[in-house]
Amino acid sequence: VSAGSIFDAYWAKHSERFLDEWRDFLRFPSVSAAPAHEADCSACAQWLGRHLREIGFQAEVMPTVGKPLVFAERRGEAGAPVVLFYGHYDVQPEDPLELWQSPPFDPVVRDGRMYARGAEDNKGQVLFFLKALETLVRTDSLRATVRILIEGEEESGSRGIAAMIPALRDRLRADLLMVSDTSMAESGAGAIIMGLRGILSFSIRLRGPSHDLHSGLHGGVAPNPAQGIGRLIASLHRSDGLIAVEDFYRDVLEPREEEKRLAGDPPFDPAAYRAATGVDPLGGEPGFPPPERLGFRPSIDVNGVHSGFGGQGTKTIIPAEAIAKITARIVPNQDPAWCRDAILRHLRAQTPPGLSLDVEQASIGGPGFRLDPRAPALRRAKEILDGLTGKPTAYIWEGASVPVVAALWKQSGAQPLLVGFGREEDRIHAPNESFSIEQFRLGYRYCVEMLRGLAPA
Amino acid sequence: VSAGSIFDAYWAKHSERFLDEWRDFLRFPSVSAAPAHEADCSACAQWLGRHLREIGFQAEVMPTVGKPLVFAERRGEAGAPVVLFYGHYDVQPEDPLELWQSPPFDPVVRDGRMYARGAEDNKGQVLFFLKALETLVRTDSLRATVRILIEGEEESGSRGIAAMIPALRDRLRADLLMVSDTSMAESGAGAIIMGLRGILSFSIRLRGPSHDLHSGLHGGVAPNPAQGIGRLIASLHRSDGLIAVEDFYRDVLEPREEEKRLAGDPPFDPAAYRAATGVDPLGGEPGFPPPERLGFRPSIDVNGVHSGFGGQGTKTIIPAEAIAKITARIVPNQDPAWCRDAILRHLRAQTPPGLSLDVEQASIGGPGFRLDPRAPALRRAKEILDGLTGKPTAYIWEGASVPVVAALWKQSGAQPLLVGFGREEDRIHAPNESFSIEQFRLGYRYCVEMLRGLAPA
Repeated sequence: VSAGSIFDAYWAKHSERFLDEWRDFLRFPSVSAAPAHEADCSACAQWLGRHLREIGFQAEVMPTVGKPLVFAERRGEAGAPVVLFYGHYDVQPEDPLELWQSPPFDPVVRDGRMYARGAEDNKGQVLFFLKALETLVRTDSLRATVRILIEGEEESGSRGIAAMIPALRDRLRADLLMVSDTSMAESGAGAIIMGLRGILSFSIRLRGPSHDLHSGLHGGVAPNPAQGIGRLIASLHRSDGLIAVEDFYRDVLEPREEEKRLAGDPPFDPAAYRAATGVDPLGGEPGFPPPERLGFRPSIDVNGVHSGFGGQGTKTIIPAEAIAKITARIVPNQDPAWCRDAILRHLRAQTPPGLSLDVEQASIGGPGFRLDPRAPALRRAKEILDGLTGKPTAYIWEGASVPVVAALWKQSGAQPLLVGFGREEDRIHAPNESFSIEQFRLGYRYCVEMLRGLAPA
Repeated sequence: VSAGSIFDAYWAKHSERFLDEWRDFLRFPSVSAAPAHEADCSACAQWLGRHLREIGFQAEVMPTVGKPLVFAERRGEAGAPVVLFYGHYDVQPEDPLELWQSPPFDPVVRDGRMYARGAEDNKGQVLFFLKALETLVRTDSLRATVRILIEGEEESGSRGIAAMIPALRDRLRADLLMVSDTSMAESGAGAIIMGLRGILSFSIRLRGPSHDLHSGLHGGVAPNPAQGIGRLIASLHRSDGLIAVEDFYRDVLEPREEEKRLAGDPPFDPAAYRAATGVDPLGGEPGFPPPERLGFRPSIDVNGVHSGFGGQGTKTIIPAEAIAKITARIVPNQDPAWCRDAILRHLRAQTPPGLSLDVEQASIGGPGFRLDPRAPALRRAKEILDGLTGKPTAYIWEGASVPVVAALWKQSGAQPLLVGFGREEDRIHAPNESFSIEQFRLGYRYCVEMLRGLAPA
């Protein structure tokens, strides 16, 4: 029999049990944002620890400043590559509960799909990795050393793991960093994430009068924080959409020709974008098509602005203050601390006379990174995905940020390999989240193939 | 006994009851901007009608297209001057409620000050006029005919009274239009308002994506309404503080030399301004001192702006929409409709690509006006105020707007006489609004003196 058949046989024999274990995993209401679910998160972490031991790992459930962190390891052959896997066992809140067709923490299979909160994000995608490991261990096919980190706060800031990473440094060294927390291409082809942007977060407050002033008695004399915040926000970009912070593009690298070609395949579809979002893709810089703007260009985004009156009718005030929430997405080769400081210098310099700026938050989520499509692990992943889906795998330079991935990449020195099997219809973060058994099987097969190929040089 | 003593005795005997009546008046949460307070506004108008009848007036509570209008009249001696008094019983919204030291509609006296929404603006200043009338009627000292109009929508556009003024025309003819909805000089001297600015009100909504988008997956591609509203707000002014709306200053008249002299006396005190407001007077145009900016120059003021996230921490969204509340103050000789249209043209032209602008309100409160300091009624008021305060009365070209005053002035043919007793510390329109009993008494004495002097020629 061929190697493929061994694993097909293992799936055929054990997949019903895999579904049972998946249901067990999903029954924990491990909502990290909800203090009421503290004990459920711990119980879920303990379940993972036991499960990892059962499949041949040394596993610890580590307390952190936040939710417990699951760390596990299985040593492979001397000189074999080291894989670090990162995932999370926490889930988004389940509300609005009334929109669920079956209870979010009572998993059921309907029409070949597992319905439950976390079915995809990230319990489904964590479990197919563990089941691939089980398969390789039990069939004596795993030669690599595998290290596993599964955190419990990805949906609410990753505080615990972030604080633990420096202490775990020596146990995180790896050659390959595998993560499955992303999606396939819309066509159903596999997708390899070629980069993520870093993120900086700012919360600012612009103070003016000691109390709201009458806008008739003071209009044209008292400095107005609502106008000031408008000026500050407007000052962040030039009229052509470029970021106006001095030297902000200093360290930004242009996409290479090959990256441009891969990022533009399949071609960006403006009509589909409009149908999905309700807007034309007219934000940001001209001169770069949307996939390149997302993947290779920094952005500064105002997430919220609030000042003064917002009700019905008219209230003739000059508000006492204004707040804005701002995030910046930064790209590889931009230094997060330099970028943060440049934005703060800009905000301070642009604060209108008579108003005072309080910076209440200016935090660094992490740097951006960009992978080389020629890296051997990425080529191997592409071959596997091409074969499994029968379609040419897409290379996606993501605009989003997974701050922990950047930190693990830096700390482990590993080649990141971000391949997930989500689809739009999974409705992650929404009611009736689900993940099809076919997607689970695809992920499982991808992990089996990827891991069994890792042997001593 | 001198006449003064009669009125002093009346005050001494009845002022405790005046305070009780003031509290009764303040307990009505007559917030005209809030549809939920519709019935409270009507109840407040009915209370005023009864009160006016009790002090010897014929009073009607008239339905309007908006809130009820209180009209009352007491005929005086044949050939005696006719006084038209205008005031309002509606108040500003009370929010933010959490900043009030005592509930806004549960009036209390602390340290000689009445605390409640409307304590000054305008219930306190309406009531001292009514109490002066009561005093004159009960002491048989009133010879003038007095007509009274108290509306319920001054804080939200004066729609009802504006629609009624043409129909009431014959009942509004008067020689003197008395209004107390303004403030004293900072020194504690009396102040005669020599002009008011007109007002235009705008409520705009900037729409972007059909739902909040993930700012990582869309930052730099989707147009951002929070950024767009910042650009729109910033676009209203040039960096030197001048209004950037095209031709906006076209019809603005420069102050005359005598006006500049009177407006600058007493000289503006930047330190006192800072102490009272918490800011330096650095808003608006350079080249005109603050009193001239308020009295003779238009302004555009953002009263509120709201979009997206405003909570703790970070929420990585591109908000679906943004709103802004904007008012413009216009000066005599500026045409309100032309100014409104110019601002709308500007907002439409400046709307960033990819976003759409909804103008939800663009209403005209009224034009600005300017008085002649040599008018006899103004001279008489100055003598009374000089005597009551012991300080030289100030002539103030006010930055605020009492939209209906311009219309009543036109319709009644009367000489406007705007003398109010507000102080900065009253914090009108803000939490913890108050009015001191001493300010109330001063206003009462001024009204007594002004009205008792009006006799047949």
